[in-house]
Parts: sequence; structure tokens; C-alpha cells
Amino acid sequence: MTQHRSDIEIARAATKKPIMEIGEKLGIPQLDLVPYGHDKAKVSAGFIAAQKDRTNGKLILVTAINPTPAGEGKTTTTVGLGDGLNRIGKRAMICIREASLGPNFGMKGGAAGGGMAQVVPMEEMNLHFTGDFHAITSAHNLLSAMIDNHIYWGNELEIDARRIVWRRVMDMNDRALRDIVVNLGGVANGFPRQTGFDITVASEVMAILCLAKDLKDLQERLGAIVVAYRRDKTPIFCRDIKADGAMTVLLKDAMQPNLVQTLENNPAFVHGGPFANIAHGCNSVVATTTALKLADFVVTEAGFGADLGAEKFFDIKCRKAGLKPDAAVIVATVRAMKMNGGVKKDELGAENVAAVEQGCANLGRHIENVKKFGVPVVVAINHFVSDTEAEVQAVKDYVATLGTEAILCKHWALGSAGIEDLAHKVVELAESGVAEFAPLYPDEMPLFDKIETIAKSIYHAGEVIAEKSVREQLRQWEAQGYGKLPICMAKTQYSFSTDPNLRGAPSGHSVTVREVRLSAGAGFIVVITGEIMTMPGLPRTPSSEKIFLNDKGQIEGLF
Amino acid sequence: MTQHRSDIEIARAATKKPIMEIGEKLGIPQLDLVPYGHDKAKVSAGFIAAQKDRTNGKLILVTAINPTPAGEGKTTTTVGLGDGLNRIGKRAMICIREASLGPNFGMKGGAAGGGMAQVVPMEEMNLHFTGDFHAITSAHNLLSAMIDNHIYWGNELEIDARRIVWRRVMDMNDRALRDIVVNLGGVANGFPRQTGFDITVASEVMAILCLAKDLKDLQERLGAIVVAYRRDKTPIFCRDIKADGAMTVLLKDAMQPNLVQTLENNPAFVHGGPFANIAHGCNSVVATTTALKLADFVVTEAGFGADLGAEKFFDIKCRKAGLKPDAAVIVATVRAMKMNGGVKKDELGAENVAAVEQGCANLGRHIENVKKFGVPVVVAINHFVSDTEAEVQAVKDYVATLGTEAILCKHWALGSAGIEDLAHKVVELAESGVAEFAPLYPDEMPLFDKIETIAKSIYHAGEVIAEKSVREQLRQWEAQGYGKLPICMAKTQYSFSTDPNLRGAPSGHSVTVREVRLSAGAGFIVVITGEIMTMPGLPRTPSSEKIFLNDKGQIEGLF
Repeated sequence: MTQHRSDIEIARAATKKPIMEIGEKLGIPQLDLVPYGHDKAKVSAGFIAAQKDRTNGKLILVTAINPTPAGEGKTTTTVGLGDGLNRIGKRAMICIREASLGPNFGMKGGAAGGGMAQVVPMEEMNLHFTGDFHAITSAHNLLSAMIDNHIYWGNELEIDARRIVWRRVMDMNDRALRDIVVNLGGVANGFPRQTGFDITVASEVMAILCLAKDLKDLQERLGAIVVAYRRDKTPIFCRDIKADGAMTVLLKDAMQPNLVQTLENNPAFVHGGPFANIAHGCNSVVATTTALKLADFVVTEAGFGADLGAEKFFDIKCRKAGLKPDAAVIVATVRAMKMNGGVKKDELGAENVAAVEQGCANLGRHIENVKKFGVPVVVAINHFVSDTEAEVQAVKDYVATLGTEAILCKHWALGSAGIEDLAHKVVELAESGVAEFAPLYPDEMPLFDKIETIAKSIYHAGEVIAEKSVREQLRQWEAQGYGKLPICMAKTQYSFSTDPNLRGAPSGHSVTVREVRLSAGAGFIVVITGEIMTMPGLPRTPSSEKIFLNDKGQIEGLF
Repeated sequence: MTQHRSDIEIARAATKKPIMEIGEKLGIPQLDLVPYGHDKAKVSAGFIAAQKDRTNGKLILVTAINPTPAGEGKTTTTVGLGDGLNRIGKRAMICIREASLGPNFGMKGGAAGGGMAQVVPMEEMNLHFTGDFHAITSAHNLLSAMIDNHIYWGNELEIDARRIVWRRVMDMNDRALRDIVVNLGGVANGFPRQTGFDITVASEVMAILCLAKDLKDLQERLGAIVVAYRRDKTPIFCRDIKADGAMTVLLKDAMQPNLVQTLENNPAFVHGGPFANIAHGCNSVVATTTALKLADFVVTEAGFGADLGAEKFFDIKCRKAGLKPDAAVIVATVRAMKMNGGVKKDELGAENVAAVEQGCANLGRHIENVKKFGVPVVVAINHFVSDTEAEVQAVKDYVATLGTEAILCKHWALGSAGIEDLAHKVVELAESGVAEFAPLYPDEMPLFDKIETIAKSIYHAGEVIAEKSVREQLRQWEAQGYGKLPICMAKTQYSFSTDPNLRGAPSGHSVTVREVRLSAGAGFIVVITGEIMTMPGLPRTPSSEKIFLNDKGQIEGLF
């Protein structure tokens, strides 16, 4: 049985095909595939542009219940479904996010999927991969350097040094850099001021890269970043600093989607990885729109649970890129239902049908929510060996009461052979033409009303609380022309509410808006409802202490 | 005529061969060549290890007179000579350094060579290339984060926070980061302390990567880095922080040499790029030793003029890697001779044989110095169109008085066809067997005596001045077992003396040692004799303001 091997053991044993062969299956000529090693490649901008008149395939979103420590297996199911669709004879590919380098040195690195449903090469995807995140770091920090340099040489733009909102980034968990004073050391080094570093995935450049349609759009969005304000509070843009052109040059390769393969040698784009709280948490628009030209079915995923991830996928990514999803899969596990039903982690092994039934309320809320966007839904029960038949049946029965089907999936243990039923159902839903996708709110709705709409409709909150200063800030942005932007909610992923311990399907709670931030380049307003950590720290014993190359040149300790 | 085109125009018009074909010429199987695009590749560690019993080719060093604003064309001559050797039927390859990303956004980026003697692809080599410098940045900063994290969680090693010598790095010209305070913001962020960022090429990790023999040696050297001291001044090593394994993992691809090609489709390794003042300024040992297994002639270069570059190449790189150079080329130009003879830059166009003759003293000193290492020398006069016959003859006549030959080279205008004479002479010298390479001083010499030996023998200084604290520090390192390390001089590149304005061949001057630093991982003692800037700033109008992608997707403004 395969279950006894770890993800990394399975990944290392994979029989990879040369990436040029994978590209060939998609109809990408060798010269339009820019190799990074023999198992990774970028698709050229020219090839992508040339596909624009082709018909789009069907777009399938994989989302999930609120995450629990039990794990739900969203990426595993995304990968498995892609393989499953290929198995039943469909031309399918998957689109997922890239991993961040820094956090791998704190906790162990993440696989891209798991068991027999993985994307490879796993090691590279957890390290430098094709250098996209390094390019984003460089582009971000070039702008930072040019801002301080502008002040140093006379500050012609009259930047108020107290109101510089553009920080620096590093792809590293380094709490020492959260809050720093720069420009010390006297006249030759500039004017001292307080600032800090965020982790690279939290950079607005990351969000921009993931939402830009092409290099031209990329440069326009970079130019629109608000980097600082004057004493009179008028904004100063990246284009005023004249950094947008050089940043685009630094990002020109990073903009191109990365092609890799699943364990079953099916194509996968792994591209972009914005935060799912202060950003929208989806892989790049370029990867998704390109995949839709190359495949008949494109399976993609969104960050966290459906309350955050799917909502942002629909209201930010699909709205801005003109995407029309044809079906959605909500991933649930019996174990997570039990935890939502009040069972503790160390008691998950014992059968508890009542707890499963109680926990299903969380799943039910997500099903209803996704349907509000006009997208047909199917539930994937990601099978664990400890699940009992009665527990699985309880989930199926509950889901059926909502007019939806729940399908047991064994892709983790069996690969595509374990997920054929789901694949058939997804094809049926997507080809039925029942999808009538529409975002939750129109562009024209006032910003605060958009926040209330999300909170009440998706979170089932009773009210949204915000200080006067927050409401005034929103009105000011409306006056400056940012009123049509969508909202990007930064909320705990563990609950529909802002209290991470409130599991299940709470109603009538209050959502307090602590702070709002403008991401003018990415094109959304970030609404912060809790503590948001944009620069993680390392734990007491970071995993980096145990990472090394063994005598075979293999990486130990990363997984 | 080709001279009317700029370097970038010539580079873009190059007919590149697929990098796999270039590798094939060297006998590298396709699977051992890891492609980065179609025109760049890394050579696998396995292939390199398998070549170890092959005979070495001949090693040719290209060095130069002290640089002047007139330009001497050292890299251009290195590339031209490699092409010239191939032209006369020799199996030759070149080894040069990688460019740093950050400085390209201040001043215009540098070509790799010039005219008809260039290495391509030029754009990529000035941007992210194969990601080596990003990997070095990550490895360096992981160690930095782990140091602060160690203190945060209790400081078991008893690091004295005032004596942390390991800073952070970024591949960016960002003066704001030179001198900073980190760990602000309260208990959750750590203990505030003052530190700073250097540019990535100044990282000891860069020097280590360029001196390490293989991945095992790399990890040992990383582990030996001194990162801080305790209150009792005992050193704390990278291996105490347990970062060496993870740093090695981050650097595993960066350790592999990058294969590219010249305009004439001859193979070139472009790998590593340490500072030439606080480090040794040579491309990687791995690239050079691998090239020696694959080619009969390997042409490589050293940083700055021969007083710094060649001396460090011989005394640090060759000593540590067991390399035995067979011949050296000293590059000079008529224009630089004139400047050394007192002519101002805007008067270089007029014939001035007397000034050339006077300026030749600088060249003569370098010829004598290189001969002290037992390596036969030839002078390459890198031709400029403004040179007159009489001026060229004056250089030739002067060099002949030293028993050495000077050969006029027109590779900039004509490529390999313009440098055949030099190629023949280099083959003659290298095959003559007259080379009897030996470093300038033995490992066993006391550290201060080594400094005096370099200063008196190479710089013709009259004395070395150092404060008691410097001498004591050197003695302390000797007591700790670092006495056998070679010296890495950080001195102005513009003069044999420590005064950048003192051209020609000064004698009897004083060399003042301001500071000494231990690079225990790289394995040398840095001796600082002037102001050393390890984090540059951007100019008033940085070139980044004018860099952009044009409609064809080509980079404008970078060159």
C-alpha cells in the first residue's frame, strides 16, 4: 500500500516526464517553453498572447470548509481532481499557488498536495523554484530604495517621511525586521525614520503580479501603487518615483506561468502566491486564463475556507479577470466535521456520528454561500483511513438535504483511480450550463456597504462595527476615485466570525473593522478585522536547524 | 564596420546556439546540463565529481594595470582571448564573474565584455541570471534571522548582542539600510540592537561559495563563519547556530557553474562574483577547476588591477584550490598609459608619445610583480581606434626592455580574428613549461609579516602602520588558530598606494591598516586600508528611472 510512504518519498519516487513532453501535450512549442531544469518551465509571453482567440475551457474552483488542525486536503483534492479528469478522458490541467520560501525554515515545508495526488518536483517548489518570489522581492525593494533615495537627494515630491506606507520585504521569517529604524549613521546615509519588513508574499507586488493580465497591465498597476503621502495627505504614486518601468523589467520572467506535472504526468501551472488575508490568496490570473485556453477543464483552488478564499476568488479575481467559474467543489473531511462538532484532536480516531452531524453545519453554510455566486456545488469528502462508513454516510445525508451531492474521494491513497466519481460529477455540473456566475455586490456599491454585504451574507454577522476614522477613510478613498474597488477581507480563517475559536456556523456576531488599507495597484481595499501578522517569526527550534543535504545530495529535514 | 553598434545591439544580434549544443562540445551529457532557458545552463554536481581524474588544461590569468577612467578592457580581452584560442584550433573556455543586480539600477549595467568580444545573453546576466545571488542573499539572511531568533528564545549561547558581526544583505543599492536598528516594537519582536545591510556581493557567503571545492566543503566553511562573540570574546560560529545545513541546501544549485557562450559560440562559465576589496574578487573555484577538466586552455580574470586582483588570485584562490597558473596576460591600453602619464581624460584623443612612455611605469611594475609569482607574462594592448602607431610602438618598446612582449589586440572590433597573435603567444608561454608558480608568502608567516610582504613587495610601500589594537587582534587570531590564513587586502584599486590619486609606480609610501576583519569561513583575514563601502547608494538620477520594457518586450535603459 502506498499510504505507508511519506509525501516526500512518493514525490522522489515519481517517474517524471521531461517538461518539454508535458508542454507538447498542451500544444506548446519547445521554443515557447523556457526550461528551468528538466522538470520545470515557463510559458513565453508571446505564446500566451497568441492564444487569446481560442475558446475557454471550463473553470472549476476547489474550496473548503474552515480549516481545522485535522486538515482538509484542499490542494490534494485539486491535484487529484485534475488527474481524475484526465483519467476519464478529459483534457484537464490544474492551477495552484507557489510556496513561500521563508516559512519552510520555521515549520516543515509543505507538499504540493499529498499522498498519490501531488505536484512535483516538491523540493524545488519549496525552495527557489523558478525565482519568481526573489524577483518580487527585488522589485519591491527597488521601489523602497528609490523612495529613500528620492528624499536623500532633495525630496522634490515633498514626501512626508512619517507617511511612507511602502515598507521593504524579505522571503524569510525574521521578526527582528518587523519594526526598524533606517537611515542612521549621519548625513551620508539619509534621514532616520521608522519602517519595517514584511514577508514577500505580503507584498502588494505579489498581489499585482497575480492579478495583472499581461506585462503592460503589470506596469500600469505597479505605477498606481500609493507609496506615501505629502503633509497635505495627497498620495504619491510609484509612477511619481519612476520605479514602475524597472520593476516591470525585474518581473518580466516572474509574470510567466510555471509548468510542472502531477505524479501522473498531467500538466499543472504553479504560479503566484499572495497572502489570503491582506491579499486575495489565489494563483495568478495569467496562469488561470492561459490554462483555460490550453485545456478543456481547469481546476484551481482558493486560500483558506470558502468564506475567505472562495469569496475573494469570486469577488476579486473572477470580477477583475472576467472569469466565469462553471462549478465549485467544497472539500470536507469527516475528521474536520467532528472537530467542528466539538471533538478534540486526540479523540478524532473514535467513531462519533453525532459529532459529525453537528459539525456539518459549517459545511452547510459554505455550500449555501457558494451557491449565492450562481455556481453549482459538489462536496468532496477527502477520505481518511480512520473514517467509518456511518460517519461518511452522515455527511452524505446531510449534504443531500441541501440538494447537493457529497462524493467520497480516495485520491490520497489511490491517485486518479480514487476520484473518478467526483470527476464525472464535476463534468456533469460544468457542462450542464447551470452556472450563472455573478459577484456578490456591484462595483458601484459604497465601500462600507460592500463590507456589510460580505459580513452579513457570507459570515452571517449581525453588524459591522467601525470607528469614525475608518468610515472617513473609506469616504475619502471614494472621493479620490477608489470607490469601485472590491473589498479584501482580512479575517481569521478558522471561523465565520472574527473569533477563531467559534466553530460551526455562528450567526448574529459582530465584525469589528480595526483598520483599512488601500492596495491601489492590486485594486482592492483591505479590511482588517483582527491581528494580521505580515512578518512571521521562527519558533524556538526552527526546522532549519535540522535541514541538510545528505550524501546522495538529497534534502533532509525540509519535509 | 561593427564599431558603430553598441554592445547591447551586438549582443542582441548574436546568433546563439542552444546551450545543450555548447555543452555537447565540452562533452557534457544533456541530463547533466540543467537548463535555465535555452541559452544558460548549470553543470550537475555529479558530472563535475566524475571528471576528477582527468588531466587539467592550462590556466591563463588575465589581469591589468591599475584601472583608469579611460578603461582597460580586461573582461573584453578575457573573452577575446578565449575566442582567439578557439580560432587557432585550441579547445579553450573562459571563466568570468557574475554581475551584481543592485548596481544596475544606479549606473547603467555592465556588459560581459564589449564590442565583438562578449558573453551572451547580456540582459539576463545583468538581471536575475540563474538566481545564484538570490540564493546567496537567502542563505545569508537565514543565518541572520536564526541569530536574532536564538537570542529571542533565551540566548542559550550567551551571544553578546553588541558583538554580533553578522549583518544582513540585499542585492540592491540602498543606503538607507547601511545603519539600522532592528527588533523594535516591544517584547514580541525581540531585543533592540544596531546593525545593517551590506550588498550581497560583500557577503562572506559569496566568498565562501567562490572558494568551496564542493558542497561538503561549502557546508564546512559556512559552519566556520564567526557570527558573534560572547562577553568573554570567545567566538560563536554559524555551526553553533545550526544554520550551516539549511544554508547549504539553499546554495546547492548556486554552487553549480553557469554555462553560457561567447558571440562566437565558444563556452564560458560565468559563476560567482565576490567583492575585490573585502573579498578575493575571482570567479568560483568550482567553475575554474571544472573548466580545467573540460578544456585544454582556460582563460580567467581577476578583479581590479594586478596589485589587488592578481595578488589575491595567486595568494588566495590558487593557494587554496591548488591551482597552478601557466601564463598571465596583463591588459593595458594606450589611453590608460597616457592617463598614468598625467594626461587628462578630455585630452586623451591627441597623440602624446611622451606621456605614454611616462605612464608605462605603472605597467612595468605590474609585469615585475606578476613575475614574482613565477608566472610568465605577456602584455595585451587592447586597441582603441584613436591609438597612433607611434604610441603603440612606445608601449611595445618599453615592455621589451623588461624582457616581455606586448601584442596589439583588435578583438573589440574584429573578435577572434583580431587577437590571434596574442593567442599564439599565450599557447607558447603556457606550453613552454617555464611557469613555476608559488604564492608570495608561506602559510606559516605571521599575519602582520604577510601584510608587510604584500605592501613592500607588490605595492613598493616603505612601511606598514597599524595601531596596537590591530596588531593585538592579529595576534589573538594567531592564538586562536587563524595564523595560517592568507591576507585579503582592501585597498584603493586606482593606485599602488592607498592614495587613489597617486598614479604611475610610487615607492616608499606608507600603508596604514585601519581595521582587520576575520572571514573564518572563506578563510582569509581582511586588511582594510581605506574607506570601504559595502552598501552603495543610488545617484541623484538613478538609471532605474529610465529602465523599461519596450513594445517588443526588450529591455531599454539597462545598458
